[in-house]
Amino acid sequence: MKVVVNIKLKDLVLDPAGKATQDALCSLDFNVKNVRIGKQIVFDLDKKNEDEARKEVTKMCEELLANTVIEDYEIVL
Amino acid sequence: MKVVVNIKLKDLVLDPAGKATQDALCSLDFNVKNVRIGKQIVFDLDKKNEDEARKEVTKMCEELLANTVIEDYEIVL
Repeated sequence: MKVVVNIKLKDLVLDPAGKATQDALCSLDFNVKNVRIGKQIVFDLDKKNEDEARKEVTKMCEELLANTVIEDYEIVL
Repeated sequence: MKVVVNIKLKDLVLDPAGKATQDALCSLDFNVKNVRIGKQIVFDLDKKNEDEARKEVTKMCEELLANTVIEDYEIVL
């Protein structure tokens, strides 16, 4: 099963990389706002059942993939 | 309009961060394969028309957001 995990900074956390990208885009005359940059982790998981897979991937996020103090994660199966 | 750009390394490009994450997950007894890590850039674009927006975001990717030599990008409107 293919799994996609999107990890992004919580809304209240400052995103300097996003701000720098926004400034760069605006300097190229692109009219963008609220640029936020996150990680996307894609992998194969040896599970047939979606509920089981979601439980396991949640564990992965909580234990390793996301820093839950400052990041939120979204699991896409 | 909210725009999501997913940027990932081309398949033939080695992904050391993905490999390190895979090893870490396996050491925690998670059975995962082919871990690949990419970027997800989210922003607001002042466009009503989807075709226009897609054309502009493609230009952003080609000019700044993606290194098209080693990265592929996907635009989600």
